[in-house]
Amino acid sequence: MDAKTVKVGLVGFGTVGSGVAKIIHENGQEIAERTGIRLRLACVVDKDTTTPRVVSLPDEVLTDDLGRLLDDKSIDIAIELIGGTTTAKDIVLKMLAAGKHVVTANKALLAEQGGDLYRAALKAGRCIAFEASSCGGIPIVSALRTGLAANDITALYGIFNGTSNYILTRMTGSGAAFDDVLKEAQQKGFAEADPTLDINGADTAHKLAILAGLAFGCRIEMKDISIEGIQNVQIEDIRNAQELGYVLKLLAIGEKDPDGRISLRVHPSFLSEETPLADVDGPFNAVSVFGNAVGNVMFYGRGAGMMATASAVVADIIEIALGTSERLFERMPMVTEKRKAANFKKIDDIQSRFYIRIMAKDQPGVFARYGQVLGKHNISISGAMQHEGAGPENTVPVIITTHPTRQKNMTAALKELQQLDILRGTPVCIRIVDIPEDKE
Amino acid sequence: MDAKTVKVGLVGFGTVGSGVAKIIHENGQEIAERTGIRLRLACVVDKDTTTPRVVSLPDEVLTDDLGRLLDDKSIDIAIELIGGTTTAKDIVLKMLAAGKHVVTANKALLAEQGGDLYRAALKAGRCIAFEASSCGGIPIVSALRTGLAANDITALYGIFNGTSNYILTRMTGSGAAFDDVLKEAQQKGFAEADPTLDINGADTAHKLAILAGLAFGCRIEMKDISIEGIQNVQIEDIRNAQELGYVLKLLAIGEKDPDGRISLRVHPSFLSEETPLADVDGPFNAVSVFGNAVGNVMFYGRGAGMMATASAVVADIIEIALGTSERLFERMPMVTEKRKAANFKKIDDIQSRFYIRIMAKDQPGVFARYGQVLGKHNISISGAMQHEGAGPENTVPVIITTHPTRQKNMTAALKELQQLDILRGTPVCIRIVDIPEDKE
Repeated sequence: MDAKTVKVGLVGFGTVGSGVAKIIHENGQEIAERTGIRLRLACVVDKDTTTPRVVSLPDEVLTDDLGRLLDDKSIDIAIELIGGTTTAKDIVLKMLAAGKHVVTANKALLAEQGGDLYRAALKAGRCIAFEASSCGGIPIVSALRTGLAANDITALYGIFNGTSNYILTRMTGSGAAFDDVLKEAQQKGFAEADPTLDINGADTAHKLAILAGLAFGCRIEMKDISIEGIQNVQIEDIRNAQELGYVLKLLAIGEKDPDGRISLRVHPSFLSEETPLADVDGPFNAVSVFGNAVGNVMFYGRGAGMMATASAVVADIIEIALGTSERLFERMPMVTEKRKAANFKKIDDIQSRFYIRIMAKDQPGVFARYGQVLGKHNISISGAMQHEGAGPENTVPVIITTHPTRQKNMTAALKELQQLDILRGTPVCIRIVDIPEDKE
Repeated sequence: MDAKTVKVGLVGFGTVGSGVAKIIHENGQEIAERTGIRLRLACVVDKDTTTPRVVSLPDEVLTDDLGRLLDDKSIDIAIELIGGTTTAKDIVLKMLAAGKHVVTANKALLAEQGGDLYRAALKAGRCIAFEASSCGGIPIVSALRTGLAANDITALYGIFNGTSNYILTRMTGSGAAFDDVLKEAQQKGFAEADPTLDINGADTAHKLAILAGLAFGCRIEMKDISIEGIQNVQIEDIRNAQELGYVLKLLAIGEKDPDGRISLRVHPSFLSEETPLADVDGPFNAVSVFGNAVGNVMFYGRGAGMMATASAVVADIIEIALGTSERLFERMPMVTEKRKAANFKKIDDIQSRFYIRIMAKDQPGVFARYGQVLGKHNISISGAMQHEGAGPENTVPVIITTHPTRQKNMTAALKELQQLDILRGTPVCIRIVDIPEDKE
């Protein structure tokens, strides 16, 4: 069978866009042999048409005129790689209106405006493919939509943000403070000049919204996710984690109760160092999915970066060219209204174990008073640790870990603890997440 | 969108067949909501129509008459789950001739007779889906065909056989000998009454043939794979592995050189205990894939068993019902003749590090004589270990690890070592496999 030539248009010739061009250039022959699809990058649109990239394009391909891409009827597939949610949305809608199938890596756009886009795509009889939007090169979107489609998915746990994970890994390894490690990460190119969305958990939550929507097959909006980032993580707590046999990770959690109630959360989490996810270091991502038939399936790989993300973008182009994406998009309910409403569990009702660090005046009876407050709120202590030696201004840090406790009770207890006259500063409270084991 | 009802026929109502029926029964509603496909198990064929299974079927569904399935024009999708390569082949050909798409979990059939079947399917205008044939519930077939399709795949490493892995894990944990652990595994149901294909590496090689064919996009036959099983693994070598920082695993290896030459091997392998694959224990499978764009992607999950395998079978049914499998099968060259010929690397030319254990008479000069033989064959020693205390009949075990060495040289050296008068028994030689690291 001769390979079928497929013309592709690209908007956004930055890092990932350059990676896409590089893959098509370098792997094009291999892709044609294996898939029967010969990709041709016919039009690349970017404001900047002069700065050299890792791949140089013929003059007639690179343009700053979006209209050239939209008007070229021979281009069936258009890729949006400019990021952001305003111009990008406008461009995607224009691509669909011009009759193009769309590939995007834009998680913020899909998580926040996906409904409008999917509706427009269905109306136009075109599809939107978005494997690259979550976890870079890991084919997790495809796994959740089809590979694991036979399962009732009960939970997914993920490390979705390479920048946060790099910072936490470096803090753990070097013992350096958050601000210093962030600066280093920026210098090395592992963090953006403005890393806000990475470190405040929003990027992780965008991916969770997309993946949990596929996993649980229900409507999910950003407001349904409880989000805490790593910006307040202190090195003391990372050290204490190590001493207690835990590793601190920014974890995305989607869980479904036996009664069908869903909880979605992003927060710094203590993971047992025995858990496979605890070994996921630096810029890597991983997702652990639990299905009622398959048990635990785990996926691991590069979650971002030029080539890994481009790998997913090009996979989506190939699937559109093969005709499979369109079939999936037509048949599987992506549009919000066609998905069932989720029954969300209130964050107050979530059960978790907790790690608490309290700085208090070093005087007799302190420990007993903590214990009283926790006991009053029905919180059972599973461990406690107080090192000798004082903190600043004659204070001592007391570490307490709890048995599973309702969030509501912990919130109330923390509030009461803060009113104690012996306390200094705000207590630190980090959830200990017990990822289920799938053992023979 | 209303769910579309799809009627399915099944041949082979054993363990996996029962799992398929259970999933359709228990997850059918969830599957319909998420995929728009409502599955109906319309006909189940098995010689045994009386033994109770985990799911009971209506009388009119279970039959011992294959003709009923073949003649029912309302059944579009037929599943082959009887195993073996003779009757199964005949049944699959009949299913295709009757106009059914086929789903199979039969790795031996595909690895050994796939060419004939794919040809028959193309001729009949039908597809064969086989996600369940390799690594149970892990969607690795789909990942290699589409999710990673943008990559030039340079290597894959896998633990593909749960029985072998269970035995090696138990030997490592308990220090018990192979025969004892095998008996225990049979009693617990982790090994078949006849475990030959599991422990001699053939089952692993079947899966490697299927997956490497997809990864490298070339023709692969069983004769192209060098196979050693675990049947001769001795507990001493597992203990030595631990002392040296390695874990012994039965590994499937597919590698492509920069010059495009492919090597395919299945053999017991020492893996650094730092390698993620070294942590894959018991009945679990894992695959580590290296692509030139994506870097290292790893997949982990249950490689066998009723529900995990059934999860993959039902995923294939859903993809056929969605129309995506057919598209893939049409466009991507599955049939041997349409794939390019592989340029295989001779096993003699493969480079590896080696672990050697030699039993020899405990007398002066022994070590020097080993060193001479190895040096003569251009083999450089990287480490050596000789514990005090003698073995049987005044012998001592000497452990040697080497730097990367050509297989040819090692084979010649072993032959020469065996002719030394100081040697007792046959030297043990196990390859040390260095899985590449994908680090920032």
